[in-house]
Amino acid sequence: MTEAELNERANEKARKRKAARDRMLATKTEEKGLLIVHTGKGKGKSTAAFGLIARAIGNGMRTGVVQYVKGKWETGERVVLERFPDLAEIRTMGEGFTWDTQDRARDIAAAKRAWEVSKEMIEACRVDRSKGEKPKYDMVLLDELNIVLRYDYLPLEEVVEFLDNRPEDLHVIVTGRNAKPELIEAADLVTEMTQIKHPFREQGVKAQKGVEF
Amino acid sequence: MTEAELNERANEKARKRKAARDRMLATKTEEKGLLIVHTGKGKGKSTAAFGLIARAIGNGMRTGVVQYVKGKWETGERVVLERFPDLAEIRTMGEGFTWDTQDRARDIAAAKRAWEVSKEMIEACRVDRSKGEKPKYDMVLLDELNIVLRYDYLPLEEVVEFLDNRPEDLHVIVTGRNAKPELIEAADLVTEMTQIKHPFREQGVKAQKGVEF
Repeated sequence: MTEAELNERANEKARKRKAARDRMLATKTEEKGLLIVHTGKGKGKSTAAFGLIARAIGNGMRTGVVQYVKGKWETGERVVLERFPDLAEIRTMGEGFTWDTQDRARDIAAAKRAWEVSKEMIEACRVDRSKGEKPKYDMVLLDELNIVLRYDYLPLEEVVEFLDNRPEDLHVIVTGRNAKPELIEAADLVTEMTQIKHPFREQGVKAQKGVEF
Repeated sequence: MTEAELNERANEKARKRKAARDRMLATKTEEKGLLIVHTGKGKGKSTAAFGLIARAIGNGMRTGVVQYVKGKWETGERVVLERFPDLAEIRTMGEGFTWDTQDRARDIAAAKRAWEVSKEMIEACRVDRSKGEKPKYDMVLLDELNIVLRYDYLPLEEVVEFLDNRPEDLHVIVTGRNAKPELIEAADLVTEMTQIKHPFREQGVKAQKGVEF
């Protein structure tokens, strides 16, 4: 086949693809807040959630973040979000849960405090728009909530029911490996990050600024 | 088991986990620029890459972004990155490749221009640190490069070889579904994003600001 024939064939295929996509898009009309879950053992769960938050801020949306696992790896994120003080609020639960913690009782208490803050943030979005009320946030990230659910530090049924009954315009993102099936069931959009290759484990490369933290 | 016994057992397990992790970390000493690939059919590939770029910027690192697919969905990202003009440079290739394009010849030309710019950016990081020279970027994102490789718009072997021989301190991120096996082979860190549930396809919900763009 000549290059010109290749081009013509590719262009014809693209026209058909566009037509099919346009037909599909025309059927999608509902707009609502989504419950988004990032899970799996691979990297990128919290990073993609941070990307969603940053992009939302860039679009002028108001966002709230609750960190269930106290990170040492948050300087970069904070510096960026702090440039938009009116649009981003980050709450970290005191000492919080850490990967190094060896105190289950303290972790449970921290998880409960974080959940109380999460509920407050979400409730602050339950408004009556017909009265001109505006929700406090457009998007709320519950970072690593899956971890504390996995350890049964919070009552799963209560958490899922609360998230399921969130204010209808609010986007909520939940991250962390081992998402509970009940949460996946309630979610609108679930992505699993799978590790195909990791230098940290396989190649003796250490964690590096900008990549790991 | 009493709550106190549960706590003690969990704490003991956590102590062992921490000790094992510390031993593992002690063996990881190498520091080098990583070739990172985000692929798979799920969401979050470019969003997680944007998250990495934003976090790097928050850490004071210099970043460059080449967009292989011209997006309509980039306002949010741009607003954030433009707050850090010294640390972020975004290059979009003119009309570029779009999902709606029906002109293969133009797409190939756009892909070639984008690759030339990518090479320039990466070469600008090939410096002699012993002479006090500093690379122009610490992290470069080639967003959706996988797409144009998949359509054979660029010579795969040349691209992979060039990326494999990148300056040693430079982190390069490549995104897009259908990553070529040769690229995965050359990469240090590969994450596959898998779609478990998607409202767009399954529930008639339309693309929304802050989530899809």
